[in-house]
Amino acid sequence: MFISFEGIDGSGKSTQLVLLRDVLEQSGSTVMTIREPGATLLSESIREILLSTKQTITPTAELLLFSAARTQLVEKVIEPALEQGTVILCDRYVDSTTAYQGFGRMLDMESVKSCNRIATRGVMPSVTFFIDVAFEQAQQRMQFDTAAGEPDRMERAGREFFERVREGYLAIAKDDPARMVVIDGARDRAAIHDDILRALRDRTSLPL
Amino acid sequence: MFISFEGIDGSGKSTQLVLLRDVLEQSGSTVMTIREPGATLLSESIREILLSTKQTITPTAELLLFSAARTQLVEKVIEPALEQGTVILCDRYVDSTTAYQGFGRMLDMESVKSCNRIATRGVMPSVTFFIDVAFEQAQQRMQFDTAAGEPDRMERAGREFFERVREGYLAIAKDDPARMVVIDGARDRAAIHDDILRALRDRTSLPL
Repeated sequence: MFISFEGIDGSGKSTQLVLLRDVLEQSGSTVMTIREPGATLLSESIREILLSTKQTITPTAELLLFSAARTQLVEKVIEPALEQGTVILCDRYVDSTTAYQGFGRMLDMESVKSCNRIATRGVMPSVTFFIDVAFEQAQQRMQFDTAAGEPDRMERAGREFFERVREGYLAIAKDDPARMVVIDGARDRAAIHDDILRALRDRTSLPL
Repeated sequence: MFISFEGIDGSGKSTQLVLLRDVLEQSGSTVMTIREPGATLLSESIREILLSTKQTITPTAELLLFSAARTQLVEKVIEPALEQGTVILCDRYVDSTTAYQGFGRMLDMESVKSCNRIATRGVMPSVTFFIDVAFEQAQQRMQFDTAAGEPDRMERAGREFFERVREGYLAIAKDDPARMVVIDGARDRAAIHDDILRALRDRTSLPL
């Protein structure tokens, strides 16, 4: 069972992932949580490259680097874990690339889809939760992490960028409603968590 | 003017590139020589990752990493240099990916083609020289670079691998005869160099 969490920065998806992990572990499941890009040595090397300030990386190179990290993750970590019956909870997966690189940065969508197909090797989540919040609310949450006076990450990227990303997620949900569940993220965390458990009871045989 | 040189390791393509560079520079052209993957900070970081022994990189991740290095090279180096009227001589380019990753490692050809299309952004050489030599001859040339007793790179990869790579190059030449010139690399370097000059006089307006 492979479940991914998606949303703009500050949507609360990582909090919800942890709440679900705890419930699953308490009910006896073996759970692996993954934060993308990460979880392999290659991904860590790629993350270092992406964070390096010595070089400006073109959006297309960025797309290919994220995809390289992802395919290594799929082949070396996700596929073997799924074969062992592990429940995988992934904080961002392929929909982030579609929403951020495709809709947000407006890269050619055919290239984005090709990279996603190559990187995932067809391994897709059974269920994806898109925690949908408005830009203002996400920004407010992010500000708790930012020193006063400094422009935060969301201010730097800009409202229009995040609105395109959100539209991207909603477009994916419309295309693939069997997989992607849109959750109203404007409510408190307990209400959102309840929605997630209810959706999983409806859609999976997980012991919840 | 963008010219690439292709061939299996030990084919003599790098020697021919240097001979052509000297002639072009003597006739007044501004020439840039590039060895792939290289020529950008990102490519150097990616080369370090590929050479790292700490991690096994999957063939698909390798394909995506080469493509990330290539697209950065195209956008940051090749496109601006071509706009300035520079003659670019590239030691390996996109056909290496098709021949080595596609035919040699037998990766899914649709993935290879997609990555090549994304990475090149449509920037293709006007002329590509494929220096065609048999495995034995290439291996003999490579052995001069290898300490006695050690298996050389070609022995480790194996004859069958290089025969598939060579078949790949020949298939590309058959598909795109307007671009790819097959040069019989079994002769001495002066004869090969003369063939290259003759082909460029026929196909380009370079002052040769």
